[in-house]
Order: sequence, then structure tokens, then C-alpha cells
Amino acid sequence: MPEQSPLDLPEGDPFGPHNLPYGVFSTREQPGHRRIGVRYGAHVLDLHALATTSPSPHAALLTAPTLNPLMAAGRSVWQAVREAVRAAVTDPAHRATTEDLLIPLDEVTLHLPFEVADYVDFYASEHHATNVGRIFRPDGAALTPNWKHLPIGYHGRSGTVVVTGTPVVRPSGQRKAPSDPAPVFGPSVRLDIEAEVGFVVGTPSALHEPVGQDAFRDHVFGVCLVNDWSARDLQAWEYVPLGPFLGKSFATSVSAWITPLDALDHARTAPPSRDVPLLPYLDDARREPGGFDIRIQVDINGETISRPPFSAMYWTAAQQLAHMTVNGASLRTGDLFASGTVSGPEPDQLGCLLELTKGGGPYLQDGDEVVLTAWCPGPDGARIGLGEVRGRVAPAHAESTGGPAADDPAAVPPAS
Amino acid sequence: MPEQSPLDLPEGDPFGPHNLPYGVFSTREQPGHRRIGVRYGAHVLDLHALATTSPSPHAALLTAPTLNPLMAAGRSVWQAVREAVRAAVTDPAHRATTEDLLIPLDEVTLHLPFEVADYVDFYASEHHATNVGRIFRPDGAALTPNWKHLPIGYHGRSGTVVVTGTPVVRPSGQRKAPSDPAPVFGPSVRLDIEAEVGFVVGTPSALHEPVGQDAFRDHVFGVCLVNDWSARDLQAWEYVPLGPFLGKSFATSVSAWITPLDALDHARTAPPSRDVPLLPYLDDARREPGGFDIRIQVDINGETISRPPFSAMYWTAAQQLAHMTVNGASLRTGDLFASGTVSGPEPDQLGCLLELTKGGGPYLQDGDEVVLTAWCPGPDGARIGLGEVRGRVAPAHAESTGGPAADDPAAVPPAS
Repeated sequence: MPEQSPLDLPEGDPFGPHNLPYGVFSTREQPGHRRIGVRYGAHVLDLHALATTSPSPHAALLTAPTLNPLMAAGRSVWQAVREAVRAAVTDPAHRATTEDLLIPLDEVTLHLPFEVADYVDFYASEHHATNVGRIFRPDGAALTPNWKHLPIGYHGRSGTVVVTGTPVVRPSGQRKAPSDPAPVFGPSVRLDIEAEVGFVVGTPSALHEPVGQDAFRDHVFGVCLVNDWSARDLQAWEYVPLGPFLGKSFATSVSAWITPLDALDHARTAPPSRDVPLLPYLDDARREPGGFDIRIQVDINGETISRPPFSAMYWTAAQQLAHMTVNGASLRTGDLFASGTVSGPEPDQLGCLLELTKGGGPYLQDGDEVVLTAWCPGPDGARIGLGEVRGRVAPAHAESTGGPAADDPAAVPPAS
Repeated sequence: MPEQSPLDLPEGDPFGPHNLPYGVFSTREQPGHRRIGVRYGAHVLDLHALATTSPSPHAALLTAPTLNPLMAAGRSVWQAVREAVRAAVTDPAHRATTEDLLIPLDEVTLHLPFEVADYVDFYASEHHATNVGRIFRPDGAALTPNWKHLPIGYHGRSGTVVVTGTPVVRPSGQRKAPSDPAPVFGPSVRLDIEAEVGFVVGTPSALHEPVGQDAFRDHVFGVCLVNDWSARDLQAWEYVPLGPFLGKSFATSVSAWITPLDALDHARTAPPSRDVPLLPYLDDARREPGGFDIRIQVDINGETISRPPFSAMYWTAAQQLAHMTVNGASLRTGDLFASGTVSGPEPDQLGCLLELTKGGGPYLQDGDEVVLTAWCPGPDGARIGLGEVRGRVAPAHAESTGGPAADDPAAVPPAS
């Protein structure tokens, strides 16, 4: 009986020929050699090797150690490369060559696939914003007056965007309950997740030139999953008046695979109906549907705790792109903008523990492993998988458990 | 009478041998050749040429097109290069060689001197925070309860950090006065400045490893002036609950010259006394003085409108560095963290028009030119100048005056 080819995928594999997400990997033999690959089933197609063995007009892009050059090359190049990769995995004439370039996933190390330029996090789920507003601001309206007029967002720390699998060390910082007389310092006791979808900018834009919703396909290279880890106790104490800072900046995990935007065509869906009229630059009534029917699953320690539906998001990524640039701000290759926590209307569709536990916890414990997975409909009943985001909580840094700086022995409290 | 040497500076020149700030320039003859230079008086010393004509162990760093490789090399290299540059401009033995490598400032184009990694803006002036709090939140306490316990900050957009001289196009966006029934779209009518001092990170730090205040000199390469342009009307409508976004993200101007931290040694001064006890990682009572006696001057259209004293800042840059990393967030070469608006206690010491006009304006008009300059005490009565930050307001983008996206002709309002 002939050995089965890795090109023959099991029925329903979400990483089949309609997906073809890009990543960056290295092998045990050459740990310093970062290469671009495409996931196919449980294997990685080595695009670096493909581009050096078969003549490609895009060899310089495909032999880079990050996706950035390919991302910067623009949509027509993305389409040409995608077609070439699809031919490599589906055309019988390429079968033997391609099989030689497939490496089992468990034999590679996956790296952050692109250099992050600016990272923006939005707040686009009405369900999430309402739930959080009720918890954080019990005496006020759940949604702020601006919420349905513009997609609220803020800049996060791009230097701490890490790839799936990176341990998340419990952050330390200040927290203060309303009844406490003064803030205390120590490891966060309310460490949370935020299940999100991220959009990765390829084509840059010029300063002073707004990018409209209709240019979304020209600028957005692809999509990933995001876990925007959040220390709720740090965040609650610090975030008024200038927004989240240390409560979010310690780690943001992204999937190792960036699914091309074109792979999501069959998942397009209309966003929820809008309650208030939108200004022209945000109006999407006559545009192609801006939502995506991405179904997320959140597992903690192997148990599924939620299934947030991305289709429920009030604001679309195209609206976010238009808003983010309407003041003339430019885009750079590598900009990452995430949706904000994806929460649906049902109690088992919430994208963070804050909501799932109505603010009361329990939150993450040391050793907990969180895994986000997702898929959306593809053509002919196929599923398109987004790369998983996996992260295990590690104990707080030893020097941070008592509050003092490491260089100030006099301030170290008695050993506990 | 012999021609005067550009090495012989006028008495009191703030760019003398105790300053020696770094920048990146190009010349008319070679516009594509970006080179590292050091400002000396009204000239630029071409470090690229110096490193290629005189043997230097640091030639690879000094022939780069940005300061980032030099910044990443660490403090001992910064000190060695600084000594070599000082010798080049002060040692009579080098005089003839050095004179040949000096280019008049008006013959060069200055570029953004480093690639900005993450940009963080703080809010460290008690006077500014109090004044702004009274204007933005007239019904609440001027300072939020956290303000004296931690240096409040937020991440800004690093992709729109621009070098002095870059025109600042009036941003468009949403605004809504409390009495308006709905937001309107259009060019900001409350365009403001924020006079700030920026600190540029050279040596990176590891993820999960907090950087204490005492490591400030090991990580901070130098200092620049910053104008954090702000659209107050956009900001007021958008900033609750996640902080400033489009009201700030259209442009942040920095000086072309980065003054080495060591050049500010004589300007060190104790910050104002602390009203509340600080947690150990922020306590600076027994540390070297963390303030800097930098005197800023704000000119609009040639008229001096304010002289903000940096010595009045409540939070120091060392405290900000410690706070920014106490949750384990890493530093990258090129991280820029700015002080927030510098305002002193007096009415002619306020760092933005919002404060100077008590919220009532007038704000910036198209064509207005804003220039920030600053100096601080150096050794032997010398002055150390920071590079100026100059910016002229250009009219709003034509497509942004009516609100529609450029790709939606149906939504374009009648021509005005």
C-alpha cells in the first residue's frame, strides 16, 4: 500500500487549497534560518525553497525572513503568489516537486510572521462594550455616547506582540479597589483574555491621504487571530483618563498564520443593522458586506468555554480602516489592527472572562493554557481555518512580586 | 584677515562641544544618501565621512542611514563615539581634517533621525493635568485619583512621528459639542500644540524583565523636543473610554537632533516634592535627581507665547521608564517616550493653547508656524540647546472638508 501523500488532506481540513495562510518558520537543522512558508494541512510548504528551485518573479519577496516585503508588494502580487502556491499544491504536474518541499508542522518552529508597525485595538462588539461598560461604569450608561457614531480604538504596544506559543508571564503593577486607601503593587489577580480577530496591513498609504472603505482590499493583506491579554485590575486603576496602558502592554499574542483576505470571500456577511445614521466615510449601507462569518472557539485547559461569533461585530474592519486614516494618518506595512473582544449576544458567546464571569472571576491561574481557534465558510462547503493562538500563563517575575525595583535591595520586603 | 573657522563658535552658542547632538542629513548633491551627522554651531559634522576617512571601530554604526544601530550599541559605545566626536571638534591636531567635514546647516536636508519603534506619551505635568482636567471634566476633580500614584501614559502612533519642518495638514474628523444632536464631520476647528520633551531608547530590554529607575542611563540614548499636535474637538468626542486616538494620531513632530543624555548632566534637578508616598519602584527620594532644568520656548508666527519649564514636571523620565516596563513590557531600540505637555505654574508657562486660552481659543489657523526651542545649563556656564521643532499648519485635505470618502462621489456635498 503506497504511503499517503501529505497533499491528500482529510475531508474538511480547514487548511486546504482555499486557505493557504502564510507564516515564517525555521527548522531544527537550521534554527537561524527563518523562511516563509504556507500551511497546507498538517505541513508547511517551504516557499523559500520553492522560490529558489522554481523560477519566480517574486523570489526576492519569498526568500525574506519576514512577510513584510511580500505584504508591501501590493494586491496584484499577493494574487499572483497565491495562484502559484495553489498550483503547487493542486496541480498534478507539480505534485512530486511540492511533496519534497513539505515539512511536518511538528518539525518546525513558528515565528512572529511579520514585523509589527503600529498596533491598534478597536472595541467593535456592541455586546462586549455594553457588558464591560456595565461592569466598569455601573453608575453610567453602558455605552458611551460616541460608541455608535465611530469605531472606538486606541494604540497598543507593538513591541510586545508575540507569536502563539509564547509564555505569558503574569504582569505586575498597581491596583486599587475603590475601598482601598491607596494602591498596592503586585502580580495581577485578574488576568484575562480577549478573543479578537486581527487585520494586517500590507500596502502602505501616504500621510495626509485618507483611505476609504472601498480601498480595504488594496491595503489589507490578511487576517489572524489575536489574544489581547488584559490585567483587569491594573487596567481599572490606570485607564481614566487616557485609556489602557500597562493593563494591556505586557503581551498580545497572534497566530503564526496570516490567512489572505481573499480566502475569506465566502465568509463575507452583512454586519448588524445600524441604530444611528453614520457619517458618509463610515456609511457602509451600499458597500460589499463588511462583516465576516468567523466562528471563534475559546478553550482553557482543554475545555471549551465560549464560541464568540465575529459576525455579530457592530463595526467592520473596513470601517475601522476608514476611521483610522480619516484624519490623514498614514498606514505602514505591518500595521496590525484588531477588532476588540469578540462577544455575541448569548452567554456562551463572550470573548473574555470579565464578561463570562460578570466581573467576579475566576480569572486565569498560573499554568492555565488558553487556545483560540476559528474557522469560516469557504467555497464548496470547505472550511477556512485561522491559525490558533495558544498561550500558557507563567508565574509573575520573581522581582515583581514585592513591588521593588531589582536594583533597590533596601526596598525588598521580608521573604515570603 | 583669515577666514573664521566654523569650529570657532560665537560665545554662548548652544550647540558647542558640550552638546554634540546626533542627526541624519542628506545634501543637495546626494539627496538619496542619508548620513549621520553631529551638529556643531551652524554646521553639521559629517560622521559618515569621518568614519570612512579615519579608522573607527564603530564605522559600521556611523555609516548607517539612521541612528538606530548606534543607539542599539549601548552606553559604552555611545561614550566612546562621543569622546571621538568631541576630540574631532576640539583637538587642534584634528582641526584641518574636521573643518573639511563640516557642512553648513542651510545646505543640508534633515531627516527623521531614527526609526520609531513604540511611541508612548505621558501626562506628567501636574499643572497641565490640572488645567486640562478642569476644562474637559468641569464637574469632576481636576486630577483623577490615580494621577499622583503613577505616571499616566498611553501609546501613540509611531508611524506618524515626523521630523521638524514637515507641514502639519489640518486633520478632519468627528466632533460633537454637548449641545449638538449628532456629531458633524470636518476639519478640526481646535487644532492645538503640545510642547514636550522626548526620550529616545537606545538599549533594548528583554520581555518579562522590568527596567528600574537606576537603569535609566543604560537604556536612554538621548533627548529631543516634541510637538504632539492635538485636535481638541476630535479628542473631546472620542477619548472616553479608551483615550486619545485620531485627535493625536495625525502628526507628532520631533526635532532633527537627539542630544545625548550625558550632555544633560549639569541640568539635572530634583523634581517637585511628592504629595503622596510612592510605591518602591517609583520612589526616587534616594536616587540621583531625575528632573532636568530644560527651558522651553514656544513661538507662533515669530511671537513668543510661552516659556514652559521642564523642571516643574511632577513625574521624571526615569519614573516613566520604570513604570512603562514594570509589567514586563520590553523596550526596543527606537522607542520614544514623551513627557506630556510641559506646563509650569505661571500663566506664561503653559505648553498648549487649550491651557493658554482656558479652552476658549483661538486655536491654530492655517498658515500658522509653531516653533519650539529649548536649552538647559551645561558645564562652565555653557548652554545646551535642544534641536528646534518647527511646523506650519497646512489647510485640510480637500477630500476631507465635506466628510465623504474619496471613493464615494455620491456622498460629496455641493462644492463650497
